[in-house]
Amino acid sequence: MLDYISSIASVADKNLEKQVVNRLNDLTKPQGSLGRLEEFVLRYCLCRGSAQVAIHNMALLTFAGDHGITAENITPYPSDVTAQMVLNMAHGGAAVSVMCAKAGIEYAVVDIGVKTGFADMPGLIKRKVRSGTDNFLRQAAMTADECEKAIRTGYELGAGSPADLMGAGEMGIGNTSCASALYSLLLDMDTETTVGPGTGSAGALLEKKKAVIAQAVSMHSKEWDGSAFDALRRVGGLEIAGIAGLIFGCASRRIPVVVDGFIASSAACVAIRMNPHVKDYIFFSHVSYETFHAAYLQNEGIRPILSLDMRLGEGTGAVLAMQIIAQAMECYTKMATFGSAGVAGKIE
Amino acid sequence: MLDYISSIASVADKNLEKQVVNRLNDLTKPQGSLGRLEEFVLRYCLCRGSAQVAIHNMALLTFAGDHGITAENITPYPSDVTAQMVLNMAHGGAAVSVMCAKAGIEYAVVDIGVKTGFADMPGLIKRKVRSGTDNFLRQAAMTADECEKAIRTGYELGAGSPADLMGAGEMGIGNTSCASALYSLLLDMDTETTVGPGTGSAGALLEKKKAVIAQAVSMHSKEWDGSAFDALRRVGGLEIAGIAGLIFGCASRRIPVVVDGFIASSAACVAIRMNPHVKDYIFFSHVSYETFHAAYLQNEGIRPILSLDMRLGEGTGAVLAMQIIAQAMECYTKMATFGSAGVAGKIE
Repeated sequence: MLDYISSIASVADKNLEKQVVNRLNDLTKPQGSLGRLEEFVLRYCLCRGSAQVAIHNMALLTFAGDHGITAENITPYPSDVTAQMVLNMAHGGAAVSVMCAKAGIEYAVVDIGVKTGFADMPGLIKRKVRSGTDNFLRQAAMTADECEKAIRTGYELGAGSPADLMGAGEMGIGNTSCASALYSLLLDMDTETTVGPGTGSAGALLEKKKAVIAQAVSMHSKEWDGSAFDALRRVGGLEIAGIAGLIFGCASRRIPVVVDGFIASSAACVAIRMNPHVKDYIFFSHVSYETFHAAYLQNEGIRPILSLDMRLGEGTGAVLAMQIIAQAMECYTKMATFGSAGVAGKIE
Repeated sequence: MLDYISSIASVADKNLEKQVVNRLNDLTKPQGSLGRLEEFVLRYCLCRGSAQVAIHNMALLTFAGDHGITAENITPYPSDVTAQMVLNMAHGGAAVSVMCAKAGIEYAVVDIGVKTGFADMPGLIKRKVRSGTDNFLRQAAMTADECEKAIRTGYELGAGSPADLMGAGEMGIGNTSCASALYSLLLDMDTETTVGPGTGSAGALLEKKKAVIAQAVSMHSKEWDGSAFDALRRVGGLEIAGIAGLIFGCASRRIPVVVDGFIASSAACVAIRMNPHVKDYIFFSHVSYETFHAAYLQNEGIRPILSLDMRLGEGTGAVLAMQIIAQAMECYTKMATFGSAGVAGKIE
């Protein structure tokens, strides 16, 4: 295992937990009445390792990559849309860029593996590892070197960011196929369960998608070494590897990452299997409309923050969850205490 | 029925609906992929009566009032806390004021019925109808005149506001008791079902609360004329009447209202029974941890926006939901279209 991955430790700290809860209980509200917002405050402070922290700089990265599997014609949109959407994101016209601007979240899209090259432009981080993956129905999506390089790219972006709350999303025509294949390998689940319509496959297209992924997973499972890294390399994508790396990079600075939906969660799934402690640093923002996502989250014992039937990706669900976490921390840092406000406490 | 209440009509408009959906489908995202955010956009535009609208001014009002029922000692906090929290809200130290400041929502607390008088101060709107209600275990909480005046106060604040999205919350020690009694009368439900712990009643205190409300509901149901107005007058509160009025005032300007939790929903329940068309104008922000709230929403066929185990009131859940509705409208008004961004559509 890469050494920067193995170095992430659990955030558990009973003494710190008590400090945070005491502070929460001193604020002018009935104990526990902010519900899950208080859970988010506690988790955030534990990640940061201090009861005296606040959120000042939120950032979100959309990792973009293309997929060789699209040669099998299993997606309703042409793969050129990946590059077109990267430009749209950088120019501020995509849902995620609109929402980040509104929420005061620093935003950029990362070309970690799009087929096409791009000119330099604001809002685009050029860190291409290769121009799209190979078709994982025929061979592994990438080499071990490429996969490691993609993870390291995400790691460096996380470790080098000034953000104190990071969001992660993705763009890549064909990547629900990768995510489903990854879930199938890592969780030993039938592809009939893990494959859904993605951005809109239906009817014969959906049946073909299911058949292709079933065949690919069957082929790779015979040669797979059982590690999350090898699963990622075989059926994953460069943007998924990038998000897994981002989680490690942020965790190395004790910064939590808010992951988006079905595909970003598959990156979290890979990261957690590489080092289970990293789960402490992940907020799962929402449950996607994509069928298997709810089952995955339930399986991991995770209650997502939102459930709004979204299935766009990009990081759009992460933005909404980041606003809620930011409000929770705002209450924690700015509310009056019973003493300071002269409010009477509970009658004992 | 008061004439400004009867004048609210349904927002249904098939032609406008088609315009909004066409615009949504033209944005650079797979159709329907923003999930419930697209439902919020459609509902918002239907309320406003136009496909060319945006959210520019969000405001939230917390209506505060005291309750004679607290003489029965059924609350874990002393009733003086209502006035103390009003000051805390106006001074910016309460959860709702902290969250509104962060979200860019214009905020004020309305004294519509607190026992205590207040000096003039920024953030406080002084519209006291009377200094707390009567004990509804002994008599009606208020006279018909007072109840009508409280509704009209809320109406005037809604009708006179420049906000294009309004939020509504409440503060009043004892008001979960009013809300439970209201639900019991209006929905013909046993108080055993509608009464919960509120801000923290437990054990003997909760049993006493249940017994008191059961006795009060039994008494009033014998003389109740069956109207929502008379139920509100008998067992409701001035802040609940104020919120019902606010909904009518905003609806008169075709502005939707985002209601907070258990108690604000009881005001919505009253308003909907006064004029069912007003339901079109109400966004139910979240399902409260207070036990009966989920059942009420399900009963009305409403899926709330958030489920975060919150039970603070004040408008805190409404703030979070308003941020989500604002993001939905931000996408609607600012995202690029397939044509403008040069993004290819679905392969047909």
